[in-house]
Amino acid sequence: NGNAVDSLDYEVIENHAYREEQAQRGKLYVGYYVAVKWFFALLIGIGTGLAAVFINLSVENFAGWKFELTFKIIQKSYFAGFILYVLINFVLVFSSVYIITQFAPAAAGSGIPEIKGYLNGVDIHGILLFRTLIGKILGSIGSVGGGLALGKEGPLVHTGACIASLLGQGGSTKYHLNSRWPQLFKSDRDRRDLVTCGCAAGVAAAFRAPVGGVLFALEEVTSWWRSQLMWRVFFTSAIVAVVVRTAMGWCDSGSCGHFGSGGFIIWDISGAQEDYSFRELLPMAVIGVIGGLLGALFNQLTLYITYWRRNYLHKKGNRVKIIEACLISVITSLISFGLPLLRTCSQCPEADPNAGIECPRPPGMYGNYVNFYCGKDKEYNDLATIFFNTQDDAIRNLFSAKTIHEYSAQSLLTFLVMFYALAVITFGTAVPAGQFVPGIMIGSTYGRLVGMFVVNFYSKLNIEEGTYALLGAASFLGGSMRMTVSLCVIMVEITNNLKLLPLIMLVLLISKAVGDAFNEGLYEEQARLRGIPLLESRPKYQMRKMTAKESCGNQKVVSFPRVAKVADVVSILRSNEHNGFPVIDHSRNGETIVMGLVLRSHLLVLLQSKVDFQHSPIPNDPRGGSAPIRHNFSEFVKPVSTKGISIKDIHLTSDDLEMYIDLAPFLNPSPYVVPEDMSLTKVYNLFRQLGLRHLFVVPRPSRVIGLITRKDLLIEE
Amino acid sequence: NGNAVDSLDYEVIENHAYREEQAQRGKLYVGYYVAVKWFFALLIGIGTGLAAVFINLSVENFAGWKFELTFKIIQKSYFAGFILYVLINFVLVFSSVYIITQFAPAAAGSGIPEIKGYLNGVDIHGILLFRTLIGKILGSIGSVGGGLALGKEGPLVHTGACIASLLGQGGSTKYHLNSRWPQLFKSDRDRRDLVTCGCAAGVAAAFRAPVGGVLFALEEVTSWWRSQLMWRVFFTSAIVAVVVRTAMGWCDSGSCGHFGSGGFIIWDISGAQEDYSFRELLPMAVIGVIGGLLGALFNQLTLYITYWRRNYLHKKGNRVKIIEACLISVITSLISFGLPLLRTCSQCPEADPNAGIECPRPPGMYGNYVNFYCGKDKEYNDLATIFFNTQDDAIRNLFSAKTIHEYSAQSLLTFLVMFYALAVITFGTAVPAGQFVPGIMIGSTYGRLVGMFVVNFYSKLNIEEGTYALLGAASFLGGSMRMTVSLCVIMVEITNNLKLLPLIMLVLLISKAVGDAFNEGLYEEQARLRGIPLLESRPKYQMRKMTAKESCGNQKVVSFPRVAKVADVVSILRSNEHNGFPVIDHSRNGETIVMGLVLRSHLLVLLQSKVDFQHSPIPNDPRGGSAPIRHNFSEFVKPVSTKGISIKDIHLTSDDLEMYIDLAPFLNPSPYVVPEDMSLTKVYNLFRQLGLRHLFVVPRPSRVIGLITRKDLLIEE
Ligand SMILES: Nc1ncnc2c1ncn2[C@@H]1O[C@H](COP(=O)(O)OP(=O)(O)OP(=O)(O)O)[C@@H](O)[C@H]1O
Ligand SMILES: Nc1ncnc2c1ncn2[C@@H]1O[C@H](COP(=O)(O)OP(=O)(O)OP(=O)(O)O)[C@@H](O)[C@H]1O
Ligand SMILES: [Mg+2]
Ligand SMILES: [Mg+2]
Repeated sequence: NGNAVDSLDYEVIENHAYREEQAQRGKLYVGYYVAVKWFFALLIGIGTGLAAVFINLSVENFAGWKFELTFKIIQKSYFAGFILYVLINFVLVFSSVYIITQFAPAAAGSGIPEIKGYLNGVDIHGILLFRTLIGKILGSIGSVGGGLALGKEGPLVHTGACIASLLGQGGSTKYHLNSRWPQLFKSDRDRRDLVTCGCAAGVAAAFRAPVGGVLFALEEVTSWWRSQLMWRVFFTSAIVAVVVRTAMGWCDSGSCGHFGSGGFIIWDISGAQEDYSFRELLPMAVIGVIGGLLGALFNQLTLYITYWRRNYLHKKGNRVKIIEACLISVITSLISFGLPLLRTCSQCPEADPNAGIECPRPPGMYGNYVNFYCGKDKEYNDLATIFFNTQDDAIRNLFSAKTIHEYSAQSLLTFLVMFYALAVITFGTAVPAGQFVPGIMIGSTYGRLVGMFVVNFYSKLNIEEGTYALLGAASFLGGSMRMTVSLCVIMVEITNNLKLLPLIMLVLLISKAVGDAFNEGLYEEQARLRGIPLLESRPKYQMRKMTAKESCGNQKVVSFPRVAKVADVVSILRSNEHNGFPVIDHSRNGETIVMGLVLRSHLLVLLQSKVDFQHSPIPNDPRGGSAPIRHNFSEFVKPVSTKGISIKDIHLTSDDLEMYIDLAPFLNPSPYVVPEDMSLTKVYNLFRQLGLRHLFVVPRPSRVIGLITRKDLLIEE
Repeated sequence: NGNAVDSLDYEVIENHAYREEQAQRGKLYVGYYVAVKWFFALLIGIGTGLAAVFINLSVENFAGWKFELTFKIIQKSYFAGFILYVLINFVLVFSSVYIITQFAPAAAGSGIPEIKGYLNGVDIHGILLFRTLIGKILGSIGSVGGGLALGKEGPLVHTGACIASLLGQGGSTKYHLNSRWPQLFKSDRDRRDLVTCGCAAGVAAAFRAPVGGVLFALEEVTSWWRSQLMWRVFFTSAIVAVVVRTAMGWCDSGSCGHFGSGGFIIWDISGAQEDYSFRELLPMAVIGVIGGLLGALFNQLTLYITYWRRNYLHKKGNRVKIIEACLISVITSLISFGLPLLRTCSQCPEADPNAGIECPRPPGMYGNYVNFYCGKDKEYNDLATIFFNTQDDAIRNLFSAKTIHEYSAQSLLTFLVMFYALAVITFGTAVPAGQFVPGIMIGSTYGRLVGMFVVNFYSKLNIEEGTYALLGAASFLGGSMRMTVSLCVIMVEITNNLKLLPLIMLVLLISKAVGDAFNEGLYEEQARLRGIPLLESRPKYQMRKMTAKESCGNQKVVSFPRVAKVADVVSILRSNEHNGFPVIDHSRNGETIVMGLVLRSHLLVLLQSKVDFQHSPIPNDPRGGSAPIRHNFSEFVKPVSTKGISIKDIHLTSDDLEMYIDLAPFLNPSPYVVPEDMSLTKVYNLFRQLGLRHLFVVPRPSRVIGLITRKDLLIEE
């Protein structure tokens, strides 16, 4: 139900309090303000970078320790190893789902649909709280470390956004961690800028892709993008890159345990296939089509399953959520341990001293050619290489060059089907869950499958299966998430191979087009399911034929007079749920004039403080403006992450109810207006481009006072 | 004089003709329209890619042939070689300046300020003509091949924009090369999208940097960016990359003469310095500061010199322009040949078999360690290595790793001073000229100088002078052009070294901040000088205190009644230069109502065709709408690249002048309006975000008919 959510207000409310505050501020203040903004961008970068490093280290250490222990024990008994493996996974997943259900329900899922909604202008309660941040960080360590078919990238984006928002309000209000000084960012507009930075920082940290982060933020929020913001977002991303890099440099000395010394590039394939021939374009297009189909199917299946979960399963309470997650954990462990057991081992290929890849890999190492349940020395288990491994390593193995014929088609197919199914059922459980890494896993599996066929077909060409795996990954993500430029850049940055850019582009174009023929992108579908009313960037086709007036139907506008009786105000506020009301002034000769827009939240502040109540129904100062204001601008600031006061919380005596309030100083005197017969397409553009919340539909004006053209706006400073 | 230029109209004129046309178009048509847009994106990509390849091949062949010949002759006589060198340069530059002055005056300069203006909403006559395209291509071959201190990158951006615009109008109208079918792109809005694609394609082609191209277009045009456009722009850039790559593959077989087989990455330094220590950040910051200072100085000097050129020198006619360019060519040749002669040669370093760099380089090759006027076999001339070379090779030599101590500080300083001076005086001559490559030359020279000091200072660290040269290049471009994200990405893409991204960022941040303390960016300064009124993305500070009404001053609005007498229309159009007029209807009881906005260009069409003239002063159809329209929508389409008809071209008989026209069907019934006391900041945001041309300032409305919120715009298709 769309009525539960409120919109954000990106407009500047130019009421008297605001104007007075502005008047006190000189140019110096503006400079200070800009400096603080940059300082916050720096802090967001550092915070998100550190959070990412923390999550990464924890996940890799938990998982590494788990696999090390398991491998040690299976030397003696496969059964004991299996029990241990299942148990560790179970404990990790249980702790994750317990934290989420008990302390931070808003931290479940990837969080990207919610952030997308926030940046689109929808206020969703609870997504940017301190507890959500903590829940997200700890929860994703548990769920990713516990080996579920989900990733940590989506949650990192949410983490970045949370950090940004909390910094902006100076800490958490609830836990009394807040300080007063940085409370400069009072309007939704300022907060939105911070959250944009945080969102970019999250992507930059998750994929170590600074440019990708900027573009991701940009693609989600294009409607009100400004070039100053772009530069600041970029700065934040670069800071993240520096922080992550520094941490990695520190890990190089071996002090990060199982994390090893992983390079800055996550899956470096810069050494792969140098060139491609035109004949390869056909199989690549096939990969694109497969990606579009499988991606759209993924969206559809997860939509059904989430729908079912929301409306039946999760209604039954937290206990069911916990049991569900634990069950899925056990199933996942069972499959990832059991299936490789059933697979017969393969012979190692001839050792190629140049490639530097050992077969089988030495015990306790990460790499290709895992020896699992294989008898002889020169054997490896190709299914275990991808299944019984951390996801990062599995992807690295799938992308790896110089390992042609490592996988059998049968193993890849088994893995594809099983992992796809696992990813679908895992989606929507009450743990933090990203879809990037599972998507890359699925995509690179079928990509590599296609690559195997191509190697057989065009045997004369210099083809690497790893390149096809990368294209497969891009195609699946494109087919499911339908992101474009940012996805493309992220794929390039995580693999450090600029030369594949045109190919990735081609594959993405195809898979997005194919996917769009079936349904919307993953995040849009999920946002819709959660009742987040996103405004798309393109107006709908039939809006061309509608006018502004038609879109309001024959609604009766609820408005206030300039001087309103308190009793009336209370009763009007009780009688509806609107958040904005026109204020109409009646002059003596019966003419009316629209004075502006007053927000419900401001009215509530006035009712609560009572200082503006007056006995007479006559305006304070008919000429307007010079009456002293008894309020500080900051009283009107909307609190973040709490619902704010409601009309039910306000208690007034019957004397109070007989008083009056003059609304003139508190209203927004210049809301945007549109004439009644403007076509809805134009209204839509105005509304979305400027990030509005309320728009007045008014009669055609009676005269034109002046015309503004470009020349009138060219004012020299 | 800002009055000479007109603005572009990005608004959809929803008059009757438009509505009728829209009504005839079903969903199928929309699909067709989208398909054509993509097809055009493809064509723009191919066209720009081919143009870039053509320019590159020609320049490299001319220059290569020139240097080969000169080197051959100086084996016998340095004097004869010198004469030949000067002569070839002279001929090339002369042909360039001759083409420009005689056929395509709009093709002089870089063209980026003009394109920036176009995308900002300013219509500059002549910049997107067919002759400009040809002049730009041929002219930049001459000027770059002729060894002037300028580059071919800016002109390529202009070339891409021209190709896009010409494709959009279906060819050149003047030279009868136009076809009818693709004339779908009739409004400024559609053309703007095409030009954006072309602009991105130009950058992508110039630097072989597809992502950089997208970001460049984005940074220039953020105000009305939409995500659909982003994807299409990206597609165009990718096509350019494919075309350029294919052409390069073809060159690999040696069929491109002196062009050689240059890789896709222009100055590949991916093998350079792997890591950096924190102690290096200080010298890098110094590079940033130097870049900011030298960049700002460059902007200031070029501003003075262009001002002087425009107002004194170039007023004297084309002959002066030709003489000037030729003079500069001779001076440049003299310096670049003469100075290395004065320099004593240096000893070759110990041969390092791993580096694979020979010293001195073999004759007829490109590379480091040029032997010029050196006696012995194992000697080279470091000044000639950078000065007596094509610019691309010189930059490659400056960026090159594993060549520590190749240059002496004295040579670098000499080169820096001389080249800086040459770049300043060359700027603004009547030839196509880009500032990217000269900027990279200047920047990498002082960057390498700093690098030399760092190598001496921190001698224990693994430092490459080439890395510092790259940072220097970034800092100078940042200090001069003040671009941010796009520049950063371009630098990464031309050098294929993702790992340096945070350092490039840091340097750019510093140099931009330092530069901004002195003056505006190069393109903004030049645009201002040329009278292109750019609207910045940020409203000016004092706009907060102004209202919409104040910004119009006490102008008397020139308006039309609904049914206007032809004689009145003519006299009003003669009496002023405004391009938009309100139409006011007087009802019988004396009330007035604003009907809409009519454009001068539409009025001129009506006056010329005369079919709408009527004898009675009574509206055609008082209820509006159902009168048949005698005009096709396409008659109102604004011609590109011609001034359109003027009121002086229209001849009416005295009978005609006594007739009336009913303007109702031809006006835009819903222009955007603002109430008179809206603050100018808000007006500015509205105007710029929506790309408007005219905005009505109206009295406060008397009532609110309805309220539009997010919910009202969520219409299901
Ligand atoms: N003051 C009002 N008088 C009459 N109708 C209104 C008023 N405000 C909003 N509406 C209408 O009520 C419907 C629901 O809007 P709603 O009340 O949720 O808006 P809001 O709460 O002010 O804004 P949002 O929910 O986007 O934060 C919409 O169709 C809107 O046009
Ligand atoms: N119809 C009009 N009546 C009165 N003043 C106008 C009218 N149109 C424009 N102006 C004013 O005249 C000044 C010059 O504007 P100008 O006439 O060049 O606008 P234009 O030609 O319609 O638009 P542009 O030049 O941006 O294409 C501006 O200050 C503008 O406010
Ligand atoms: Mg509401
Ligand atoms: Mg004008």
